[in-house]
Amino acid sequence: MVRAYEKYHPFPQVPIENREWPSKTITKAPIWCSVDLRDGNQALVEPMNLDEKLLMFNTLINIGFKEIEVGFPSASETEYEIIRTLIEENYIPDDVTIQVLVQAREHLIRKTFEAIRGAKNVILHFYNSTSALQRKVVFKTDVDGIIDIAVNGAKLIKKLSKEVDSDMNLRFEYSPESFSGTEMDNAVKICSKVMEVFEPTKDNKIILNLPATVECSTPNCYADQIEYFCKHLPGRENAIISIHPHNDRGTGVASAELGLLAGAERVEGTLFGNGERTGNVDIVTLALNMYSQGIDPKLNFSNIKKIMEVYEKTTKMKVPPRHPYAGELVFTAFSGSHQDAINKGMEYMRSTGSKYWEVPYLPIDPADIGRDYEPIIRINSQSGKGGAAYIMQTEFGYNLPKEMRADFGAIVKARCDETGKELKPQEVFDLFKSEYIGINEPYELCGYSFKHERTDKGTVVKFIGEIKHNGVEKVISGTGNGPIDAFFRAIKGTGLDKYVFVSYNEQAISDGSDSLAVSYIQLKDPDGRPVFGVGIDSDISIASLKAIMSAINRSLKK
Amino acid sequence: MVRAYEKYHPFPQVPIENREWPSKTITKAPIWCSVDLRDGNQALVEPMNLDEKLLMFNTLINIGFKEIEVGFPSASETEYEIIRTLIEENYIPDDVTIQVLVQAREHLIRKTFEAIRGAKNVILHFYNSTSALQRKVVFKTDVDGIIDIAVNGAKLIKKLSKEVDSDMNLRFEYSPESFSGTEMDNAVKICSKVMEVFEPTKDNKIILNLPATVECSTPNCYADQIEYFCKHLPGRENAIISIHPHNDRGTGVASAELGLLAGAERVEGTLFGNGERTGNVDIVTLALNMYSQGIDPKLNFSNIKKIMEVYEKTTKMKVPPRHPYAGELVFTAFSGSHQDAINKGMEYMRSTGSKYWEVPYLPIDPADIGRDYEPIIRINSQSGKGGAAYIMQTEFGYNLPKEMRADFGAIVKARCDETGKELKPQEVFDLFKSEYIGINEPYELCGYSFKHERTDKGTVVKFIGEIKHNGVEKVISGTGNGPIDAFFRAIKGTGLDKYVFVSYNEQAISDGSDSLAVSYIQLKDPDGRPVFGVGIDSDISIASLKAIMSAINRSLKK
Repeated sequence: MVRAYEKYHPFPQVPIENREWPSKTITKAPIWCSVDLRDGNQALVEPMNLDEKLLMFNTLINIGFKEIEVGFPSASETEYEIIRTLIEENYIPDDVTIQVLVQAREHLIRKTFEAIRGAKNVILHFYNSTSALQRKVVFKTDVDGIIDIAVNGAKLIKKLSKEVDSDMNLRFEYSPESFSGTEMDNAVKICSKVMEVFEPTKDNKIILNLPATVECSTPNCYADQIEYFCKHLPGRENAIISIHPHNDRGTGVASAELGLLAGAERVEGTLFGNGERTGNVDIVTLALNMYSQGIDPKLNFSNIKKIMEVYEKTTKMKVPPRHPYAGELVFTAFSGSHQDAINKGMEYMRSTGSKYWEVPYLPIDPADIGRDYEPIIRINSQSGKGGAAYIMQTEFGYNLPKEMRADFGAIVKARCDETGKELKPQEVFDLFKSEYIGINEPYELCGYSFKHERTDKGTVVKFIGEIKHNGVEKVISGTGNGPIDAFFRAIKGTGLDKYVFVSYNEQAISDGSDSLAVSYIQLKDPDGRPVFGVGIDSDISIASLKAIMSAINRSLKK
Repeated sequence: MVRAYEKYHPFPQVPIENREWPSKTITKAPIWCSVDLRDGNQALVEPMNLDEKLLMFNTLINIGFKEIEVGFPSASETEYEIIRTLIEENYIPDDVTIQVLVQAREHLIRKTFEAIRGAKNVILHFYNSTSALQRKVVFKTDVDGIIDIAVNGAKLIKKLSKEVDSDMNLRFEYSPESFSGTEMDNAVKICSKVMEVFEPTKDNKIILNLPATVECSTPNCYADQIEYFCKHLPGRENAIISIHPHNDRGTGVASAELGLLAGAERVEGTLFGNGERTGNVDIVTLALNMYSQGIDPKLNFSNIKKIMEVYEKTTKMKVPPRHPYAGELVFTAFSGSHQDAINKGMEYMRSTGSKYWEVPYLPIDPADIGRDYEPIIRINSQSGKGGAAYIMQTEFGYNLPKEMRADFGAIVKARCDETGKELKPQEVFDLFKSEYIGINEPYELCGYSFKHERTDKGTVVKFIGEIKHNGVEKVISGTGNGPIDAFFRAIKGTGLDKYVFVSYNEQAISDGSDSLAVSYIQLKDPDGRPVFGVGIDSDISIASLKAIMSAINRSLKK
């Protein structure tokens, strides 16, 4: 019995010697060429209309693309008309080159030359398919037949290019389409025959674009192909080697990166990896990967949200939530230990003023691409104490003392376990308030006054107040060296005195001298267990009293 | 001025010598471990409840996973309870090992041992973070401090493991978490110290799992790390080297593939790449990549739709339309040349009976994973003649003759250009019918009869019929050697005789002797241009007459 997987051939190894690319690193951005309006567009259920193409075109220019493949003008009237509009209505800046794609076929080439009339900077990009498989099942011809198609196309293009306006800066690009499935010596041979027609020089290079039209190997093999091609191409110095990876094996970005190590100088791809089938290589990820290594990507993604909006509007595709850099969830940590580490990294950055980005679990600073810190930490049953503390601090300005974080974390986790849902920041805050603040039973502090006096022994504070318990009010009073001390002396003999004071923290939670203070109090209950309470008041002394009462009442209610 | 990208460090090269992995190929499936129920689950806005976890667990088993990380039982009550349910209610087959994750901390380890009571096969997976960054900003300790955490955890686990039921098959896994950001000599040192505690052997190996907790380099550097680690680890033969790539740079699949080349023997990942932030490595893609190279992946994805359904239901995530293999659009071609090549590849497979898969643009046969051929070709303004012909054949059984495909292709393209929308198969068919079939103006064939006789000169066919034009009916008749010949002789002198017959094709479009016939007729109009018509009738002779009348009427109406 033939098992299904046996009907597939393994990819043949590239016969490369002295492989160099694995020891190299990427040190600068390649020449970028956007194919959003062509390869991306042709893969949409509903291709873009004129307005959408114009919107995307302007967005690509704003990002910084200087080479943009705008369409396949001989393929349909829509494509043709859009290119004419771009040219005739002067949408193309002087420093931007438009690129047009055409198969190496006479009537299509002629139509393409009609389409580019009047443009200032043009790359005429022609192709024919060269792979062993396509030669066999589609073209039913041999390598010489394929070379004829390419060379005849090249000759016609060269001839027609002499007839264009003399002020058009017209360059040429050739793609041996399905390069990734072509034997390398054949790819070199076909491309060198095309070069012989155009006679490129160092000052007037041809672009040779080597597509992984269908990804058919691990990305190291694509890199081997690129390196082999570069090393064997006669007149290599007269060509710009361009790559055009697709993503059939989910390794388009890796193929591009390794292809750059292997000698490629130019990358064709799309925003968010749109394109035929699994898509083209994603230039957003590729560029931001470089950015994360301290390399200027020469593309500006500082407002990624706006770019996503345009992308989603024009393509009707969605950027998935786990898309690197741009996805909704990629700067979010639910796991407790991740949240804790992010928290500590942010704190480290603040306290040291480090000029480097040193936050675990976040490859880049979300702010660099116009994203917020707020959603970094989200709270569900997987989250730990660090997460809830982070939310309390970043969203509401409450700096929970370290000792209290575990206590509140456990309360948050229990709520999540109970509901099975994410807790939104406001829900975390509400839970905090209902748990720690203003707990007035069984003991209620009804009245209170302090008197602070300076004496020879330092400050002396006298406290007088009323505590209600089981409907009975009782006046209490005490004197100490501070309000908390005075209060604890006052409650001696009330039954509350089984609680021992451990520590407190206070902070202002609004600006100005009349700001509110929040006081976090930790006591020890009669069994020695920690118990926490929080109080808020415009008077820092009273905030502490309220916190103590909350702590005691919480303990007694349990 | 510091530019924003300058706040990032480039990844330091791994000091590897005599690098071997780039010359290797993947020849067999690794040991797979699903972390869907742990890493995947902890990254969900709403983690799975018990029912959802059970559904996912059973699905993973049906796919063929033998090692499944079921949770982090010490992290929350929900996690703990679910693991107890799996064990106590006998959900775990005897040949499946559950894996539980725990930080190297005493109280968590103790809780974890409680959680696994009664399980038959368990991998106890413990970790602590080891990267330079985490040592600095999170743990504020040196490498020795990190080793202490790991070794103390290991010792406690070893001690507690002596107390478990003697029939539990308990194995150990250690992860130096954030391995990808750890200096390799430190990673080796930490892991070898952990190995010294467990004293693993060739027959009782420890699993050392080397996560790219955060992807921080091109995937070749991760492979360098794995190879370096494997070459420098004392007692390498006593460890199973496992990898756990994430996808922060969009290269998780590539990192896994290159990691396998570099010596890894086991992969932890998730279905469709769910997991913290950008997700874990996607095991569906990784396994089907192997499948596409003729390697048995040892996982069964023959019903990918069902698996997607479970995934989307339990995680509330969506599989994006360009996801390799599983996405809605990945076996779809809109581009004309791609459609044409797929068409020819399918035809080649049919006509040669090739035992290999030889279809351009489709890395694997969609049927192998339970997907249909139908959506391969979809029709919009980017599509060519091959696409419409493919739809007509595969969806409706109409084999358009080669000459007619371009004619219909142009009609379809014009409609798409006009509407800017995709044409669904039924719309393509409706367009075909309204364009070619039953065109009765300006000439209508009102009555017709044939008489076929055998004579000495062969078959003789007599035709008599009535043609209505401008309200006037006219009887016509002719004799020929077949019905078409007889009809053409009959129309001599009617004004219709300026059309010349070129060719015809006929086919049955339903089964049985009473099936309907469809006739495709090509004529030449008075200017020598081709013109096509189609007729349908239970009588093959009449189908041809109808086709001829449609062709002539179409021509005259234009």
